[in-house]
Amino acid sequence: MSMRIGYGFDSHAFRAGVPLVIGGLAIEHSEGLAGHSDGDVLLHAITDALLGAVSAGDIGTFFPPSDARWKGAASSVFLKTALEEVAMAGYRIVNIDTVLVMARPKIVPIAGELRERVAELLGLKPGEVGIKAKTPEGLNQDHVAVAHVTVLLES
Amino acid sequence: MSMRIGYGFDSHAFRAGVPLVIGGLAIEHSEGLAGHSDGDVLLHAITDALLGAVSAGDIGTFFPPSDARWKGAASSVFLKTALEEVAMAGYRIVNIDTVLVMARPKIVPIAGELRERVAELLGLKPGEVGIKAKTPEGLNQDHVAVAHVTVLLES
Amino acid sequence: MSMRIGYGFDSHAFRAGVPLVIGGLAIEHSEGLAGHSDGDVLLHAITDALLGAVSAGDIGTFFPPSDARWKGAASSVFLKTALEEVAMAGYRIVNIDTVLVMARPKIVPIAGELRERVAELLGLKPGEVGIKAKTPEGLNQDHVAVAHVTVLLES
Ligand SMILES: [Mg+2]
Ligand SMILES: [Mg+2]
Ligand SMILES: [Mg+2]
Repeated sequence: MSMRIGYGFDSHAFRAGVPLVIGGLAIEHSEGLAGHSDGDVLLHAITDALLGAVSAGDIGTFFPPSDARWKGAASSVFLKTALEEVAMAGYRIVNIDTVLVMARPKIVPIAGELRERVAELLGLKPGEVGIKAKTPEGLNQDHVAVAHVTVLLES
Repeated sequence: MSMRIGYGFDSHAFRAGVPLVIGGLAIEHSEGLAGHSDGDVLLHAITDALLGAVSAGDIGTFFPPSDARWKGAASSVFLKTALEEVAMAGYRIVNIDTVLVMARPKIVPIAGELRERVAELLGLKPGEVGIKAKTPEGLNQDHVAVAHVTVLLES
Repeated sequence: MSMRIGYGFDSHAFRAGVPLVIGGLAIEHSEGLAGHSDGDVLLHAITDALLGAVSAGDIGTFFPPSDARWKGAASSVFLKTALEEVAMAGYRIVNIDTVLVMARPKIVPIAGELRERVAELLGLKPGEVGIKAKTPEGLNQDHVAVAHVTVLLES
């Protein structure tokens, strides 16, 4: 048995007039996240953590923001590619842990649903996915969503 | 044997007139950390890393800041709950690594004592705990303390 | 077999008139990174991740910025010390994953070369090193380079 570790980071500014999608879940909120795709900061960080763990580049290698094909794309497409890279390298996910750093909306009330959705997209059990949230105390980042993700793989 | 990975993040602004407590250690300094509890940015991030590793929610799930019971609370209470969740899930901590990002005070002179204290709170040997510090170069965060924590568990 | 996890963070502001060195690689760019040493944000974060994984302090413990010896030093010197600490503790690196958060220069075109260089400095195969990059969307950090690094060790 062999193991691998990966870490992913992403950030997107909030913007009025777009829907908020985090972890593949449509969330009721007054603003969404700016970005070429659907701006799903959590799925982007998970995608990068998976790609990094198997040394397969990053989300920008596979899906350049300059490519018009990914305008408004569902980020689950990016995640699917990362899962294929993990499988091709001969690994499977042991568990994944995540933190969302954002002033609002509150994540606690939807954390269970978010965990179900992320687990489903990753082919994991909910108990193998950690969903956490922090407000950006003292960081002057109230208009940004940041995601940190770690993942452990085994072959 | 099965392993798990967790990651925790926290930030608190510095504020005059409150004592500085980091890693359960009272530290001589001109300011402390703002927060509903004692503002212990390091114990909060450790607590979240442990909870996330076993998919047990986050510090806000167990100790909502809206709950008056946790006003001024010692953060070791939060940590104890996370350690119980880890034990109930059937895991033990292999090692933990941490980074404090803050302009001051200097951590190097107290790093040994901090490592002893955190190890004691976690039931670990000092050699199983990493304590590191960085100043926030270029980040305009001189009045904030940030903590990043990773943890490895095994069953 | 026993495993260990480590995490490293670093940041440096961009500054005109100095060469840009990241991951031990000289990179063509209009600015470099400010710092007492060569400002290699990626090697500093890797050094700290390795030291933290074996609870051996941090880069500042071994190489205080107040020490004139390290002025303009190649950061590969710091990394070598961390690798010695890992070996002395009886561990070897399984894999390492990294993220650079910076507005420019673009990393994708040099990611392959960067991966080769970092792997060489660590005594790893390129496939055991993850190199990723993000622009700091919404973070007002366009004039800073930030690095996050995770490492997995085994004995
Ligand atoms: Mg993104
Ligand atoms: Mg806190
Ligand atoms: Mg540095």
